Amino acid sequence: MKVGKRSYAFSTPSHIISTSTIAGPNEGNGPLKDYYRLILKDDKFGEKTFEMAERKMIKYVIGDALQRSALSASDIDMLLGGDLLNQIISASFTAREYEIPFVGLYGACSTMAESMALGALLIDSQNATKVCCTTGTHFSSVERQFRFPLELGTQRPPSGQWTVTGAACNILACDGRGPRITGATLGRVVDYGVTDANNMGAAMAPAAMDTLTAHLHDFGRKPDDYDLILTGDLGVLGGSILRDLMKEKDLPMGDNYFDCGTLVYNVDKSEFQGGSGCGCSAIVFNSYIYDRIVRGDYKKVLFMATGALLSPLSSQQGESIPGIAHAVVIEN
Amino acid sequence: MKVGKRSYAFSTPSHIISTSTIAGPNEGNGPLKDYYRLILKDDKFGEKTFEMAERKMIKYVIGDALQRSALSASDIDMLLGGDLLNQIISASFTAREYEIPFVGLYGACSTMAESMALGALLIDSQNATKVCCTTGTHFSSVERQFRFPLELGTQRPPSGQWTVTGAACNILACDGRGPRITGATLGRVVDYGVTDANNMGAAMAPAAMDTLTAHLHDFGRKPDDYDLILTGDLGVLGGSILRDLMKEKDLPMGDNYFDCGTLVYNVDKSEFQGGSGCGCSAIVFNSYIYDRIVRGDYKKVLFMATGALLSPLSSQQGESIPGIAHAVVIEN
Repeated sequence: MKVGKRSYAFSTPSHIISTSTIAGPNEGNGPLKDYYRLILKDDKFGEKTFEMAERKMIKYVIGDALQRSALSASDIDMLLGGDLLNQIISASFTAREYEIPFVGLYGACSTMAESMALGALLIDSQNATKVCCTTGTHFSSVERQFRFPLELGTQRPPSGQWTVTGAACNILACDGRGPRITGATLGRVVDYGVTDANNMGAAMAPAAMDTLTAHLHDFGRKPDDYDLILTGDLGVLGGSILRDLMKEKDLPMGDNYFDCGTLVYNVDKSEFQGGSGCGCSAIVFNSYIYDRIVRGDYKKVLFMATGALLSPLSSQQGESIPGIAHAVVIEN
Repeated sequence: MKVGKRSYAFSTPSHIISTSTIAGPNEGNGPLKDYYRLILKDDKFGEKTFEMAERKMIKYVIGDALQRSALSASDIDMLLGGDLLNQIISASFTAREYEIPFVGLYGACSTMAESMALGALLIDSQNATKVCCTTGTHFSSVERQFRFPLELGTQRPPSGQWTVTGAACNILACDGRGPRITGATLGRVVDYGVTDANNMGAAMAPAAMDTLTAHLHDFGRKPDDYDLILTGDLGVLGGSILRDLMKEKDLPMGDNYFDCGTLVYNVDKSEFQGGSGCGCSAIVFNSYIYDRIVRGDYKKVLFMATGALLSPLSSQQGESIPGIAHAVVIEN
């Protein structure tokens, strides 16, 4: 059922019946290392290229999430997925390995929430009973596509974030165990004119504010109504911009707000503002956060992944960076 | 309601209440020139770059389709769209202009059918009442991204297709006038190992066969049950491969089968196998075909857009070209 302008309350909530995550070596040294299903020692995962490794990571998490839910690919109605690489080759080529109808998405780093919102909408319609949501990124494939080849040794500016090497998958079902997705708010494309491709947090924070205010308004809620509000990968700087923007809207956020980009690393000099990339919010939500929801530490969570919708070419042509944020409510 | 393994029959069918199309100068000399809403004389549409022109085309068709349906952007629940450019900047940046919740898709040249299938699923669920579906391509932006800069004057092989400069939009609504989307079949990613990026028709034909056979099986239909089966952009060669593949499956197709790639041009030497690109099936379906359905010439149409899910990088790394095809049933 539609609620307000942009939100949905589900009469048939989707259960997140299983999740799987894989993390790169750097992420595997981070504070959430005990929560990932697999941590890579070799960041090429035995493959020849970083792109092939990214694909193999997504293949792993889909297979593992299926296995953990005791389902086979043929039980799944749809695979919803995307990634950051041009033409989302990581998700598409992986879909080739599973004979599941595939809906390719592009929401940049918002992909995990985009797929979960869409999956929950489709399950609520009773047109689907089981949906598989997946995404992932690889630091090295993303760096060379969006910025510079690693071999150049280019210096990173202090506003930069570190693209997470990791992939995650979760399986939504109309019944069964697991936390439920009870609502969703779809994002609009918002652009405050930020042009610095090394300051994604600032570019995405306005989109996060836009979706969050719409969400709270549509449902008649306040930030405090959630045990946890979790943004995708705004990083340290972007997260504090979001706090400021929400304060201006008279909806200040308290200690219940965290950003996946700041949770995924022991944020220090080398990662600057924390993590980013589709894989960032995907591995944080589907490991540590999911576990805490299952354990009952969090009863009501707003998971809102954010995406910066630029391309290197749009920046070269002088464009600013539009952002988007999709949000899902998860309850236990 | 799910039908069979991969198909859906809609109890609340979506009406395609309005469409809009824009075509480039070359397409405007083609056989369907009387059916497009606007034909560009200047293929840059007054913009500085081809990419900006592509964006402006998509902006035009969304605005025009809204106007033709007497709706404003705020009436639309979701904008479903994508394109061929890296990070789907054409669709994303255009979404910035309209304050409609945006679900970014990537299905390569299958995007028009992907968005319509998804839109119809969401309307069937009654979570959405009005959805806007859009896509577009520009010959020159796509050529330089996927193949070579035009300035190089590279020769095209005889198996090559010509990326259509054009964009289209249609608006789906739970009630109102216009042809109805009564069913859909989602595609799987299929790869027969074709590696020639200049022979997209051959790469996509197996995916078209896979979706078409699944569709016919799920609904218990034969190819003859449709007045028209319309594939996206297999071109002359790909279309004949599909005919062969369907014959092997004991489901031969008759005179009711056409491909948008062969309809969009007076296929001659320069376009070789006909048109391709997201814009190809989008402008053919939403102009000429839509008009004929409305007029009653066609009562039952299967529109199945096909996409080749490669990227230049996947080809450089030696990968073959996976294809996908999504199908929607349109009845009047």
